Amino acid sequence: MIYLDYAATTPVRKEVLEVMLPFFTEKFGNPSSQHELGLEAKRTIDESRKKISSLLGTKPSEIIFTSGGTESINLALIGIARALTDKGKHIITSKTEHKAVLETCKFLENEGFEVTYLSVDKYGLINLNELEKSIHDNTILISINYANNEIGTIQPAAEISEIAKRKKVLFHTDACQAACSDLKNKFDLITLNGSKIYGPKGIGILAVRSEAPLIPLIHGGSQEFGKRAGTENVPGIVGFAKALELSCRESQKECARLRDLQKFFISEITTKISGATLNGHPEKRLSNNVNFSFAGVDDSAVLEYLNQRKIYASSGSACDTGNINVSHVLKAIKAKDTEGTIRFTFGLETTKGQLVKVIAALQEIIESLRKIS
Amino acid sequence: MIYLDYAATTPVRKEVLEVMLPFFTEKFGNPSSQHELGLEAKRTIDESRKKISSLLGTKPSEIIFTSGGTESINLALIGIARALTDKGKHIITSKTEHKAVLETCKFLENEGFEVTYLSVDKYGLINLNELEKSIHDNTILISINYANNEIGTIQPAAEISEIAKRKKVLFHTDACQAACSDLKNKFDLITLNGSKIYGPKGIGILAVRSEAPLIPLIHGGSQEFGKRAGTENVPGIVGFAKALELSCRESQKECARLRDLQKFFISEITTKISGATLNGHPEKRLSNNVNFSFAGVDDSAVLEYLNQRKIYASSGSACDTGNINVSHVLKAIKAKDTEGTIRFTFGLETTKGQLVKVIAALQEIIESLRKIS
Repeated sequence: MIYLDYAATTPVRKEVLEVMLPFFTEKFGNPSSQHELGLEAKRTIDESRKKISSLLGTKPSEIIFTSGGTESINLALIGIARALTDKGKHIITSKTEHKAVLETCKFLENEGFEVTYLSVDKYGLINLNELEKSIHDNTILISINYANNEIGTIQPAAEISEIAKRKKVLFHTDACQAACSDLKNKFDLITLNGSKIYGPKGIGILAVRSEAPLIPLIHGGSQEFGKRAGTENVPGIVGFAKALELSCRESQKECARLRDLQKFFISEITTKISGATLNGHPEKRLSNNVNFSFAGVDDSAVLEYLNQRKIYASSGSACDTGNINVSHVLKAIKAKDTEGTIRFTFGLETTKGQLVKVIAALQEIIESLRKIS
Repeated sequence: MIYLDYAATTPVRKEVLEVMLPFFTEKFGNPSSQHELGLEAKRTIDESRKKISSLLGTKPSEIIFTSGGTESINLALIGIARALTDKGKHIITSKTEHKAVLETCKFLENEGFEVTYLSVDKYGLINLNELEKSIHDNTILISINYANNEIGTIQPAAEISEIAKRKKVLFHTDACQAACSDLKNKFDLITLNGSKIYGPKGIGILAVRSEAPLIPLIHGGSQEFGKRAGTENVPGIVGFAKALELSCRESQKECARLRDLQKFFISEITTKISGATLNGHPEKRLSNNVNFSFAGVDDSAVLEYLNQRKIYASSGSACDTGNINVSHVLKAIKAKDTEGTIRFTFGLETTKGQLVKVIAALQEIIESLRKIS
């Protein structure tokens, strides 16, 4: 198997599963219980929270555990919207956000909020002047992803942050695809997802500056500083903390390695396969993302033939399947040959040898598909 | 260690962890991915859903996976409330529900909904006449727990269901404490929680009859029939299905065993410790729940001395800690000696030998505490 769909989800690392295991069976207490088994679980969560907060440059009390990236995004957008209704009802985002952001914005529009969807250029970058002009007195939140999950384009976070601070508007980023980037001091709210960083599925965090008000999405007990009710997912929390720690520790070396693979893969495809157009920014992109449109082929056919050879890639966001329309991201960047778009995303197990095999397979598949049509 | 806090949370059973493990590391695909690794995850979820639905007497498409009991309750109450606003804005519940129900109702009251909180008698039972009289044309939902998590009292579900059907009002039950009871054909919505049935934390379900409309709480991708967005927690789902299967399969035998232990424990305490009052109904109670108020002692002191002997019990709901007020459940049943209330909840590992030790310890602790004061 050659897995090139790390942006969809990652396996849980051995080291991560190892630290999780005791919390399923022996150390299984409810962190709210006052006996030793509960207190042990509570201490474990506190330590995990501390570890995560030091990696993100926040206070421990600013880390809220959720069930994943989608819930974190919902909590950020709906939670801030509800808390700041008196200040205003205007939110700014971009056209190329993850469905979790776009669908939550749609929900908020139904609830009477106004949402500005910023356009992006052909690389997928927002325009900072357009952003600044869109901010009005009633603007309460800017939500722009750190990097796009389909085409990998990295937005100018530092510049957006500068504008948001100057205009006194809260800035949330969906950083699910970029957890080991430098996320310190730029954001008021950050969404991260365990299952994208070799941690388990079903766990995520929302980091929220203590100054930012937030109405909970899920009501009940007083867990997570009253901001997210429900018995804590202790094994998930421990696993998330370990996964983030490993990601950050190895980030520099691993990113450089992936960057080399990316350069190699892009240049090989460009030279060996005609009619291939790279989507996204040539440099300002995630080191593990390659997204190409191939003229004259259908992506589902290419993916199916790759699948038969146990090469696993995707046509776009895994969260947007069943949707036969062209991806909203490709539409927004006015990509050509959108019907033949394939996303390859690399990870820890990806090697140059694998990529050589994938290029050969791709060449063959695309050539024969073009002959048929 | 003698763990008598199974109502707070259960360990994950060996058989459950076993079926979960492959989905962390090898079979780690995102169920929305279209390659074999994703399709395998999708098939696994479908099978789990099918298994659960047949145990609960629903259609597979009526099972929605969530992050746990609290989220399921929020989705049920807020989701129905939002979907049926045009029909009415009145909800009926009871004073002794879990905080997840009560706090969600409070949130809905702030949003303009009207909530009737039914009183309970000294055993914790609601009054069916009062329920029927509370139903008006604008009533959209009845939410009554299957059994109380603190005092174990089982509500008359069949009778409530009959009234709800006759009056054409949806009926939701929080059955977290009673997953292996017969839940078929009585409810429109059922909440269950993995971490109460020897499954993992961070996973739960909401079963919803397909006729019941529901606005999602968490927006994004189209997972869970568009009713709950976010990448599915595959290991959690597999674990939940296995845990529920085992619970149901062993339910009859295990309930009888627990019922014997319960009778023994109640009669021993009543005869050996003076000033001990059983809270909750003498018969209509969960087979694993014993809740006593001891006159002249403070529950936190009793629990601390038990804790020193590695006997783990609780003063009430684990989800309500940090709250130094008397439990709302004890208040509602007008319990006496509430400051000395201890909940013991049994489970798979509980033996008569353990209970004999606990009774001896309790006797000693309570006697010496009474001497001091």
